[in-house]
Amino acid sequence: MDAKSLSAYTQFSEEKLKKHNLFQTDRFFLDVYCLKAGQAQKPHAHEASDKVYVVLEGVCRFTVDGEVREHGEGIAVFAPAGSEHGVENPGPAAARLLVMMAPPPPSK
Amino acid sequence: MDAKSLSAYTQFSEEKLKKHNLFQTDRFFLDVYCLKAGQAQKPHAHEASDKVYVVLEGVCRFTVDGEVREHGEGIAVFAPAGSEHGVENPGPAAARLLVMMAPPPPSK
Repeated sequence: MDAKSLSAYTQFSEEKLKKHNLFQTDRFFLDVYCLKAGQAQKPHAHEASDKVYVVLEGVCRFTVDGEVREHGEGIAVFAPAGSEHGVENPGPAAARLLVMMAPPPPSK
Repeated sequence: MDAKSLSAYTQFSEEKLKKHNLFQTDRFFLDVYCLKAGQAQKPHAHEASDKVYVVLEGVCRFTVDGEVREHGEGIAVFAPAGSEHGVENPGPAAARLLVMMAPPPPSK
């Protein structure tokens, strides 16, 4: 049985947001993103993939189609296909996100 | 921005496992399942959909292709397309799961 502990994915990078992949198929991927204060994923869009972020730890500032909101632990944010979406950790605490995308974008 | 709090989905049913949908498109759905002690989703398979369960609360007994394991909070369990998979809450505590499926099965 392929089972992973979310708490095992706690490695951050000094340079940029750190992505850890848990599972990936042609249909979806599930990652954990680790963001130190000030790190971000710049707004971008995927024409044919939906994304959901779930805040595991900390507080992040999400942007979806120009709307900006801060969300903390236990909040799930939906970025539908075609939407311009991004996330940044305004700090001061570190943040971890569970990120689901369906299907993976062509480049992934 | 479409954002949902996982902690808002805490309604259980006396009769059977209670499913709460957070987001659904043609590409995926994200649900919260609430299982009282003794409640279960019987083993079944989806030929063309992958599923991931993440334990939010409690302990559940997962079956994937005949392998049986109990997992608690923060564990993500992968049930790939074609696998026979199911979950039950052996109790005594209630359990809540975050459930992602890509794509939704034809009946959903």
